[in-house]
Amino acid sequence: MRYAAGVDVGGTNIVCGVLDETGHVVSKRKYPTAPDKGANAILRGIAAMIEELRVEAGVASEDLEVIGLGIPGLVDPAAGMSRRAVNLQWEQVPVVAELRAMTGKPVYIDNDVRMYVYGEAAAGAGRGHDYVYGITIGTGLAAAFVNRGEMYHGHRFMAGEIGHVPVDGIDFACNCGRTGCLETLVSATGIARLARRKLEQGQSSLLRAWFPDATAIRASDVSQACLQGDALAKEVLDRTGRALGEALAWVVPILSPDAIVIGGGGALAGDLLFEPMKQELDRRLLQDYRGHFVVKSAELNDNAGIIGSALYALHRNKSE
Amino acid sequence: MRYAAGVDVGGTNIVCGVLDETGHVVSKRKYPTAPDKGANAILRGIAAMIEELRVEAGVASEDLEVIGLGIPGLVDPAAGMSRRAVNLQWEQVPVVAELRAMTGKPVYIDNDVRMYVYGEAAAGAGRGHDYVYGITIGTGLAAAFVNRGEMYHGHRFMAGEIGHVPVDGIDFACNCGRTGCLETLVSATGIARLARRKLEQGQSSLLRAWFPDATAIRASDVSQACLQGDALAKEVLDRTGRALGEALAWVVPILSPDAIVIGGGGALAGDLLFEPMKQELDRRLLQDYRGHFVVKSAELNDNAGIIGSALYALHRNKSE
Repeated sequence: MRYAAGVDVGGTNIVCGVLDETGHVVSKRKYPTAPDKGANAILRGIAAMIEELRVEAGVASEDLEVIGLGIPGLVDPAAGMSRRAVNLQWEQVPVVAELRAMTGKPVYIDNDVRMYVYGEAAAGAGRGHDYVYGITIGTGLAAAFVNRGEMYHGHRFMAGEIGHVPVDGIDFACNCGRTGCLETLVSATGIARLARRKLEQGQSSLLRAWFPDATAIRASDVSQACLQGDALAKEVLDRTGRALGEALAWVVPILSPDAIVIGGGGALAGDLLFEPMKQELDRRLLQDYRGHFVVKSAELNDNAGIIGSALYALHRNKSE
Repeated sequence: MRYAAGVDVGGTNIVCGVLDETGHVVSKRKYPTAPDKGANAILRGIAAMIEELRVEAGVASEDLEVIGLGIPGLVDPAAGMSRRAVNLQWEQVPVVAELRAMTGKPVYIDNDVRMYVYGEAAAGAGRGHDYVYGITIGTGLAAAFVNRGEMYHGHRFMAGEIGHVPVDGIDFACNCGRTGCLETLVSATGIARLARRKLEQGQSSLLRAWFPDATAIRASDVSQACLQGDALAKEVLDRTGRALGEALAWVVPILSPDAIVIGGGGALAGDLLFEPMKQELDRRLLQDYRGHFVVKSAELNDNAGIIGSALYALHRNKSE
């Protein structure tokens, strides 16, 4: 059996795991990131944690073949560099070179969303499909594409930033400095934001009673209210789902995926979000595409990142 | 030197050529398709024409390595079948098996737009770029993608039908049975249609004097009027260009191409169409993408189809 370490580096937490070649997690640990200590300290922490987990898993050192890391922000997988990760306070960090020197193992890195989607494509909701488009609805909205088992990057490794396409009828300010980007609505943040907007406009809702301070509302609260028949909450999730369907109505004819996998915190709304999304998609799609792809929730939850990172690293190491 | 035959099968004309491995056209002929004679007669005609052109080109029989064909409609390149080509009156035609039996050569087929874009990517406007997205603006609108030298197909070989995504604010009936599809506006047909619509609404225009019968207006006439300062014509090309820019604003973050190549009769409007398109695209794109891809007119004109077919066939034959 071949083994790999998979690491999901987040701004808040780092998840490290030792996995076998089927994507089974043999041992794992989640711990706080502590970005203030600097990149080198974080990488040393990861190297030490991998060693600890390897011993715990009972895997011989020579059987741990490779290490894969998913890193937020702009990543250059070819150069092995994290170009910019705002939440980590990283800028031009030579992750591969440093971690390789610390561990003696081959190291592969990619953007965290790509690793997540790779995990879902290889061992999760996209398993058995050839063209897997994956979307994560979290603080923001990002996507990745796995093309017959190969990670798709595009020019400058920049494919996937669909969260910043402006959508008609949306006027929220976006972190990118513009207005009306898709992710200002289709994100966990966006769902809560639209609910607050509607409350400010005076619409009645269970959320008003639940949250005297509307800033405390989260996406999951909107789902909860919707499940209890709240009209405002339903409008919010309908509008969000339709905007996602509008985006997918472009993805499908451009790529013709056979699976679309949707994950991230915002996806926990499930059918409350997926039903209006599917209706909008169905309305917009050419007949020839309908019924020829699946839309599924991500299945691997918190493990998608480490599974994707480990399997991708094994795949790359084998083909080189 | 390796040689190949490239064939562009259209509903009106067939273009046959013998080309060398650099894409240089050594000999070629264009002749009427005569779909009424049936698929087998058309294929026998193609086989005979290839033989004639080979002799004319002075290429030894054994040096003509392979044959490539671009076919309109639904094509299954793996099965070697034309699934449906309405203009040819073809349905489930085993093109590869028949033509291989007639010629004794390996035969590769694909959709005509894909062959066109492959030609532009390999030897035309996309040359030297890694991720080439090509669009043809003709009677309809279709697209294809060449991913680092490989033809991209997607599930069921269905990637590329971006002409049928509905665009807000458009209400023309589409051949697909729906309303407001992108190609009802962004096509040679669509440009003429929108001009007629505006004339019917009473707007003044040079086109009114030029065409007592508005049904005779073609896209090239709209360009001509625009060049002479006609406001209606400018509005039409602006609106069309902006709709194309709206579509490309999805293509770029989904694929991150480094070249977008635009061809077909509708592209002859050139900057009259491209300028509003680029403005709309620029307005919609995330800063990180801007300036990192080129948008170019197709360069190979009528030869793109046979060049793409020949080079693709040589490429496939080499890698198998």
